[in-house]
Amino acid sequence: MASASTSISVEQLAINTIRTLSMDAVQKANSGHPGTPMALAPIAYTIWQNNLRLDPADPNWPCRDRFVLSCGHASMLLYSMIHLAGLKKVDKAGKVHDAPSITIEDIQNFRQIGSPCAGHPEYGDASGIETTTGPLGQGIANSVGMAMAAKWFGARYNRPGFELFENRVYVLCSDGDVMEGVGCEAASVAGHLGLDNLIWIYDDNNITIEGETELAFSENAAKRFEGLGWNTLTVTDANDVAALQAAIDEFKNTTGKPTLVILKSVIGWGSPNKANTHNAHGAPLGEEEIKLTKAVYGWPVDAKFLVPEEVKQHFADGIGKRGSEARENWAKQFAAYENAFPTEAAQLKEIWAGKLPTGWDSAIPTFPADAKGLASRVSSGKVINAIAKNFPWMIGGSADLAPSTMTMLEFEGAGHFSAHDYGGRNLHFGIREHAMAAICNGLSLSGLRPYCATFFVFTDYMRPSMRLSSIMHRPVTYVLTHDSIGLGEDGPTHQPVEHLAACRAIPGLDVCRPGDANEVAEAYRAAMTRQTHPIAMVLSRQNLPTIDRTKFGAAALTAKGGYILADAAGGKPTAIIMATGSELDIAMKAYEALTAEGVAVRLVSMPCQEWFDEQSAEYRESVLPTSVTARVAVEAGIRMGWDKYLGSRGEFVGMSSFGASGPFNQLYKKFGITSENVAAKVKSLL
Amino acid sequence: MASASTSISVEQLAINTIRTLSMDAVQKANSGHPGTPMALAPIAYTIWQNNLRLDPADPNWPCRDRFVLSCGHASMLLYSMIHLAGLKKVDKAGKVHDAPSITIEDIQNFRQIGSPCAGHPEYGDASGIETTTGPLGQGIANSVGMAMAAKWFGARYNRPGFELFENRVYVLCSDGDVMEGVGCEAASVAGHLGLDNLIWIYDDNNITIEGETELAFSENAAKRFEGLGWNTLTVTDANDVAALQAAIDEFKNTTGKPTLVILKSVIGWGSPNKANTHNAHGAPLGEEEIKLTKAVYGWPVDAKFLVPEEVKQHFADGIGKRGSEARENWAKQFAAYENAFPTEAAQLKEIWAGKLPTGWDSAIPTFPADAKGLASRVSSGKVINAIAKNFPWMIGGSADLAPSTMTMLEFEGAGHFSAHDYGGRNLHFGIREHAMAAICNGLSLSGLRPYCATFFVFTDYMRPSMRLSSIMHRPVTYVLTHDSIGLGEDGPTHQPVEHLAACRAIPGLDVCRPGDANEVAEAYRAAMTRQTHPIAMVLSRQNLPTIDRTKFGAAALTAKGGYILADAAGGKPTAIIMATGSELDIAMKAYEALTAEGVAVRLVSMPCQEWFDEQSAEYRESVLPTSVTARVAVEAGIRMGWDKYLGSRGEFVGMSSFGASGPFNQLYKKFGITSENVAAKVKSLL
Repeated sequence: MASASTSISVEQLAINTIRTLSMDAVQKANSGHPGTPMALAPIAYTIWQNNLRLDPADPNWPCRDRFVLSCGHASMLLYSMIHLAGLKKVDKAGKVHDAPSITIEDIQNFRQIGSPCAGHPEYGDASGIETTTGPLGQGIANSVGMAMAAKWFGARYNRPGFELFENRVYVLCSDGDVMEGVGCEAASVAGHLGLDNLIWIYDDNNITIEGETELAFSENAAKRFEGLGWNTLTVTDANDVAALQAAIDEFKNTTGKPTLVILKSVIGWGSPNKANTHNAHGAPLGEEEIKLTKAVYGWPVDAKFLVPEEVKQHFADGIGKRGSEARENWAKQFAAYENAFPTEAAQLKEIWAGKLPTGWDSAIPTFPADAKGLASRVSSGKVINAIAKNFPWMIGGSADLAPSTMTMLEFEGAGHFSAHDYGGRNLHFGIREHAMAAICNGLSLSGLRPYCATFFVFTDYMRPSMRLSSIMHRPVTYVLTHDSIGLGEDGPTHQPVEHLAACRAIPGLDVCRPGDANEVAEAYRAAMTRQTHPIAMVLSRQNLPTIDRTKFGAAALTAKGGYILADAAGGKPTAIIMATGSELDIAMKAYEALTAEGVAVRLVSMPCQEWFDEQSAEYRESVLPTSVTARVAVEAGIRMGWDKYLGSRGEFVGMSSFGASGPFNQLYKKFGITSENVAAKVKSLL
Repeated sequence: MASASTSISVEQLAINTIRTLSMDAVQKANSGHPGTPMALAPIAYTIWQNNLRLDPADPNWPCRDRFVLSCGHASMLLYSMIHLAGLKKVDKAGKVHDAPSITIEDIQNFRQIGSPCAGHPEYGDASGIETTTGPLGQGIANSVGMAMAAKWFGARYNRPGFELFENRVYVLCSDGDVMEGVGCEAASVAGHLGLDNLIWIYDDNNITIEGETELAFSENAAKRFEGLGWNTLTVTDANDVAALQAAIDEFKNTTGKPTLVILKSVIGWGSPNKANTHNAHGAPLGEEEIKLTKAVYGWPVDAKFLVPEEVKQHFADGIGKRGSEARENWAKQFAAYENAFPTEAAQLKEIWAGKLPTGWDSAIPTFPADAKGLASRVSSGKVINAIAKNFPWMIGGSADLAPSTMTMLEFEGAGHFSAHDYGGRNLHFGIREHAMAAICNGLSLSGLRPYCATFFVFTDYMRPSMRLSSIMHRPVTYVLTHDSIGLGEDGPTHQPVEHLAACRAIPGLDVCRPGDANEVAEAYRAAMTRQTHPIAMVLSRQNLPTIDRTKFGAAALTAKGGYILADAAGGKPTAIIMATGSELDIAMKAYEALTAEGVAVRLVSMPCQEWFDEQSAEYRESVLPTSVTARVAVEAGIRMGWDKYLGSRGEFVGMSSFGASGPFNQLYKKFGITSENVAAKVKSLL
């Protein structure tokens, strides 16, 4: 193998290896973003080699520092670091294998199907990828959740002499992260909470896709972040490793505030013709330019994917040795902790194993039949409290709507998470739905079981993060109340109409809209065990009768997603009514009226289409027999998504426009969502 | 009618009238938000009575100042002002009627079905409501678009001696507006552009729904906004009308920067038991507390919906007289302008009449048949340029993706909108999709015809504003490229899968995914004339063959949403294939293969479901005959939304999961979206 120039330091050689790997991979893929890895190689090197508390031999060590590449398009920077630092492979079960997380062949297959080196870092594809990034602003917002989780674990589990949790979160981010609103929301939360274990290094390169940032950006970022409660500093030369280390040292010595480092960098650094232009951003440099650039680096111009032996050794001697010592010291400390605090240690081991705590569901209430009933947001609040009390690492909160979403944990010791009490379990996100969801992804990626709450219509504000919960298979619970025109007077801007369809459209997201208090209880029971799916729990503002389960289908069937709540005599229906949530009562009234008239009708409660679709064909056929084509679905949302159950003859009672402002019972009449209308549609099909 | 105490000034009487109307309306509705109108009555009074350039007798005068209540939940504040200022009713056609925009009866019907006084202000329901607000952050972001439009009109149409456009935008906003990310994005754009005609008055009341703002908010807002390039000032007493006027005077005298006034207010001011608590926020005060509060104001405690005669007269003498004089002076000036600059004046009249300019579509190209073809983002770019050249008030831009979305206007004189050139037609939004969309709503509400662009997957970032385009019936054009796994290597975070369904779910939003360059041209031709619908134009990154229209269905049929592109011999198909966008070519190949095998198959291009659904039943039946149940749809998105065309037997070829990172042609194979698969499904149905 050709050797690189020896006239430069091994440190510089290591930095140039990061750069050339990135350039070569992008070139071979003929697609990707070389300029940012070239610019940020020195800071990535500084963090990983000399600061990051990470053991390559045990990359998922729970008390590791976290590294987040929020500018996910610069993914080759991360893949290069994972490869060079020699991280081991970890399988889905959490077992470490004596094989590299990312091989040189993986890097050569950058952006090809099946390579862990995807276009943007995908959580789960390789150890060392702490979160899926790419949509801008998400990574930095995730990092706030990670930093909060680190503080929470410290507050809950550290004991005098046992500083088990003192981990930090290092983040690289770009102009886009800083411009996106979710980034500002997350920064405000971090500043408010005084997260001094969090550092964002902002790659201030003055270049965006349309050209120089001055086209659209002229902020004084330092001043903005100071206003948000951050410590800020500037490093004027991204290649000055000593200055980079000094900045990190200042971060480590700063208490009570997160740190923003404004790093003046040159995109595509070293490229004679493309550095400092947007041409270095999103396309390969080209074979010729790569040679010219390698020459600037003092690199063998024809070598490709070259990793000099001394660079491998250098990383082994650096992060390898440092990380292994740190983890081993920690392991000794934890062994002693386990003796001194067996309960806490046992809990931590459950968390790290991804288990639900024993007895987590033992207090879930059963609600007595009650014609007046209660809003599903209210029963949800009771169920959340009942579960959380026995689930010590379930935490959550709302975007300034706790009294409306009923999501406050009210039992003793729940507490409020704040800069004064990092052990609190009630989170206050402020009016920042998007950051809330992204922060919950970060909490989930740190082992906690988070929930967050807002009005259902405001899922629109946090959809990018909900999508990422699903892409990453994180079991974030979204508590979404005020779920239809049933919220009444607030009017169309606050009334979800298309949101059930829009949420059901997201692959992997469970969408559950329980129809009474016991369906709420059973929905949570089922959802909590589905640890690879986020869930949207969609809840009413208005009261829903609690169904008498001695007379109707068992609430436990909620877990099947759809079930027969009431049937025709002899189980031989000529028509089927399906309903969810607050319309279940309307459907029930229609069922009763039709039955009284002698119509053989079945009533199906369908709280979760995703769960129902997972059932066996036999079960689904038993609930919705093919032979019964007279079907009516009722839901206070749009029809989209129901046709698959309705077939070509079925009818739908619901919304086809935005709502209106008025008392909810009048709105139901105005839009024709009534039991009379349901019954009439059934009869019209017979 | 009882008279109010005369020991207080008429000014104070007017302010208290605003307060008591709001309190009474919320109480009667038994729902709503009294506290903020009570707090902000003095600033609303000061703006409207002494500053706002608005003629109540002609409320839609195009050169009026704009007033935006971004904290839409305080809607009674706005309704009170519209009523007290005596704004006239304006019908949908723009005709002014000699009737009040909002009557006292309307206020008494606050939050009832049919009242223009909805829970949140709804654009179109009454003159004086400049935009629909309620979802927080939207109003302030709209206001940036309005201020940009005012600057643009000034730069384009003012002439020496003819300062036709010198209007300002006054905004009241709340904690939520300031916390939401979209607000920060919009503020950054406003600061960058130096919009000195824009003032945000931030109601800093220290109260949010969960309690005191310090739970989740500890920003130094002044510093943050200074970092964003704003002039900031603080008024410490929301009741000090002189200080409020001084702040507005400072705003008027500030050049080159927008102004933020931090207004220290007391929510529910005057209420002995609820002021300064979140209990004054979102619920009626209660009959007893209203009486106590009215006593504090020196108001007749039993009077309801009382508007003292002297208050009516006071507003007539203030905003009434001032506004009418301003508009009349302006009208004289415009008459002279019309003589001096007839072309410009004629253009302005077209804009104000909501007309499309003569010849706007005369340069739309026809693309020659071409097997290689071009990406629909490329043909879109050509069509946008062809239209915009003849459509002087069509302006737009992208969220830092113009080179990728192909949305730059490149003809001479298009220019770039900046603080140095407010007449530019290319907008640079930065990496701020959400503010982009909200700003476009503001531009549209100001008479311009805006478009904005980003990758299709990032509609998730701006969905709340897209929804509002639709609620408000604003014809904003969303140019959305990189529309499927066809974008290739960027991977699942960047590959829309559920977004066609999610966008089609929004009522009133047209979603068009043209299948070749001529469908692109015809789609824009149709969309531009649909002035009450926003449109999502969904476009490919990869090349699409340009279909030979001498052999296949006419591209002009695109306007019907779905049409027969190729048919079975004699128009007697036994099967139908439907497709959109980049999958039209796959469908065409399947059609050709099946036809060659002797299968009687029809190929339907379905670029816009919304348009197709609007066609007559006869037309729809002619395209999709009920008798043909062997139907296959192919689209590189999820199935949701297609079942209504597929019926119970139909099959779908598309996505059912997130995508992957890899070359796009390999991804199509991996996910089975191939002509072979389409043909096989057709055969399986026969």
